[in-house]
Amino acid sequence: MSVTDELVAANESFAASFTGGGLPGPPSRHVAVVACMDARLDVYRVLGLGDGEAHVIRNAGGVVTDDVLRSLTISQRKLGTTEVVLLHHSKCGMATFDDDEFVAELTADSGQPPEWAPGAFTDTEQDVRESLALVRDCPFLPHTDAVRGFVYDVDTGALAEVA
Amino acid sequence: MSVTDELVAANESFAASFTGGGLPGPPSRHVAVVACMDARLDVYRVLGLGDGEAHVIRNAGGVVTDDVLRSLTISQRKLGTTEVVLLHHSKCGMATFDDDEFVAELTADSGQPPEWAPGAFTDTEQDVRESLALVRDCPFLPHTDAVRGFVYDVDTGALAEVA
Repeated sequence: MSVTDELVAANESFAASFTGGGLPGPPSRHVAVVACMDARLDVYRVLGLGDGEAHVIRNAGGVVTDDVLRSLTISQRKLGTTEVVLLHHSKCGMATFDDDEFVAELTADSGQPPEWAPGAFTDTEQDVRESLALVRDCPFLPHTDAVRGFVYDVDTGALAEVA
Repeated sequence: MSVTDELVAANESFAASFTGGGLPGPPSRHVAVVACMDARLDVYRVLGLGDGEAHVIRNAGGVVTDDVLRSLTISQRKLGTTEVVLLHHSKCGMATFDDDEFVAELTADSGQPPEWAPGAFTDTEQDVRESLALVRDCPFLPHTDAVRGFVYDVDTGALAEVA
């Protein structure tokens, strides 16, 4: 039995007692969270979010890429969100490797370089600042006055805001 | 008090009773989930996932973009995941608009076209199939034999696999 099979079985139990249907698509609290994909970061519990309340966008590092700006643009313009929360975290895997070495490894293994930069970083607070600037400067977002960034401590569960 | 302020306050309560520190970065169940950002899709609860168990990657639609392939490549090569679960859902916001019209709107409002395609789709199952193919064909992923796709029903809580 694969892990995926186990997740499907877990969903059958979840669905059997599900009572949350009928919610509308637009997030009821009008907020979008951009977070790292890290396994220790259960965004709903960390921020006290309930079903239907917030968009949650996640990738490796929680970095603001074109795909994140695409998602935020749809979130604000089509589904009514007005606030953005950026969520990086301590002990991130993105600090464990070097972009140039990783690209060289990928190129050697596959015979071609990736079209994307891996996006490794060592200074988490600085990466939050750069991500904040990218969101605030995005010309397609109508709401950029409530964009805030945080670092989540995976060992204490606490947030620290990055100014 | 903004919604973000409310989330920060909720996190203070969360952190006060937090006991989950010390988990390693690599996901213990070696799986990465790619899901839509939709507010009704609490991935951890829907799939019965616990802290530290899985990477969760999310964007508008749960579509497989370059940024998703970047995240999956880091997930598999740097953090040891071997299975991929794609999670789309019913009543998706991506079916409520048209790419060409949206690009025209963004261009008119900002004076420039976006560098990304919005990625709207009307046939959810077909979009899952296209996303499955993109992951399986990615030359940078060492593990592409356990890649499966599902549609989550936001009104029943149940998954349906897409073959």
